[in-house]
Amino acid sequence: MRDRLARDAGLVQDELDRVIATLPPGDLRDAMGYAVRGGKRLRAFLVMESARLHGMSDDAALPVAAAVEALHAYSLVHDDLPAMDDDDLRRGQPTVHVTWTEATAILAGDALQTLAFQMLADPRVGDAATRIALVAALARASGAAGMVWGQALDIAAESAGTPLDLDQITELQGGKTGALIRFSAVAGALIAGRDPAPMDRYATALGLAFQIADDILDVEGYETVTGKRVGKDADAGKATFVSLMGLDGARAEARRLVTVGIDALADYGPAAGNLHELARFVIERDT
Amino acid sequence: MRDRLARDAGLVQDELDRVIATLPPGDLRDAMGYAVRGGKRLRAFLVMESARLHGMSDDAALPVAAAVEALHAYSLVHDDLPAMDDDDLRRGQPTVHVTWTEATAILAGDALQTLAFQMLADPRVGDAATRIALVAALARASGAAGMVWGQALDIAAESAGTPLDLDQITELQGGKTGALIRFSAVAGALIAGRDPAPMDRYATALGLAFQIADDILDVEGYETVTGKRVGKDADAGKATFVSLMGLDGARAEARRLVTVGIDALADYGPAAGNLHELARFVIERDT
Repeated sequence: MRDRLARDAGLVQDELDRVIATLPPGDLRDAMGYAVRGGKRLRAFLVMESARLHGMSDDAALPVAAAVEALHAYSLVHDDLPAMDDDDLRRGQPTVHVTWTEATAILAGDALQTLAFQMLADPRVGDAATRIALVAALARASGAAGMVWGQALDIAAESAGTPLDLDQITELQGGKTGALIRFSAVAGALIAGRDPAPMDRYATALGLAFQIADDILDVEGYETVTGKRVGKDADAGKATFVSLMGLDGARAEARRLVTVGIDALADYGPAAGNLHELARFVIERDT
Repeated sequence: MRDRLARDAGLVQDELDRVIATLPPGDLRDAMGYAVRGGKRLRAFLVMESARLHGMSDDAALPVAAAVEALHAYSLVHDDLPAMDDDDLRRGQPTVHVTWTEATAILAGDALQTLAFQMLADPRVGDAATRIALVAALARASGAAGMVWGQALDIAAESAGTPLDLDQITELQGGKTGALIRFSAVAGALIAGRDPAPMDRYATALGLAFQIADDILDVEGYETVTGKRVGKDADAGKATFVSLMGLDGARAEARRLVTVGIDALADYGPAAGNLHELARFVIERDT
């Protein structure tokens, strides 16, 4: 699985670099290229692997995988802004607004979102019906009823000062990080015109396990390894899965969710082996 | 023409309100609804009128017209941010970040862009091929080679402190406001599957005339009428069409462009009468 993950990450990076190179030169393009570098590429791998599982070629999945990573990168660039989470470190590097300016970070994020939708229109992905279905699905997952909704809820909770309970934090996460992870896993089924329900169940569990693991890393991780500030949530008095369930409780829940996710793929048999491994990987990673 | 403009503005407002009402309640949704209120709706009218000119129904054009206005609104919300143009007044009302917070303004802008692409996926617009062509065209017009590129150029010119020359400012405007105006005019031809070239020539002239008129209003307008700060560009020592051509020169160029735009529609005959009037309107308006 890790070989595939690394190989897909390379393919997606090449695709992003190729498309960004077609844009007019300048700070905006440089900041966009900078923002899409690095990262674990879990979302891209989910797109590529779910496409393969449904008998689709890497060539069809690649623009979709690159689109998801462009969209994810836009959300990180905006999330790091001083008016949002005010982070100066991301993936071990200074954030976009630190390297350039806030204005460039706002515009680079805006243009990366546009680029994501542009990439879904790539004819390699499939016929027009497939591509427009992906556009609609990505818009639902990432907009004011999905990812951005989760981010707004997160900001509102922080400024209200009242920590969220477990139901609320699960709902928030389902938007903020869950919606895009679900889109990524479902994309392969959509490209193939197949029922996306099992992939959606898998990704719902995976997304939640991923967020719990993130909260554990925020407590246990090392900044030099994770490439971002640690202890930030605890310092901010923010409710996390760890603060609500305890460290042992959070670890047990993450393991349970991995089992739920793997069970959802039962009908695919051993062909889904890489996705089984990915589910285990997201709770065992150290970055 | 003005009756049609007002009627289309009402239809588009209803469509935007209807779609935004389906989103989860909260500040984010409220800010989005606030951001899409008011405005001249020139872009929406261009979509509706160009669709009618090509024999398409209002029902097919409406989601596209609403999408263009959502996209335009996102660009204004982000453009008004403190890190960008730092405007506290827009369409006669406090800007989104003044009414809510910077974080909400960033997220509301992000979600309005997403909404624009979501609206283009509406089945009323036409078959999947038509819709995906519109997605690709809007992405090209609004992204890092279109509108956002123009905004980045504008910011770069301001911070460099060296005023632009006429060629540079024409190129900048072609991105910042021109690209979306051209998309709007071309959309009707795309919906109908017809050659968009004449509409593109019309809109290129219209967009430039519109920007020249804006620069004239910035010098001559009244804040109470235009609903935004006037004299801002001159105060900032920014090059404008007026500073480069003089007031009389700018007026003459705007009139010349209106003729160029109207001539581009010659093959449509009198059916294009509303678009002729619109071209005259954009240089005679007082807001």
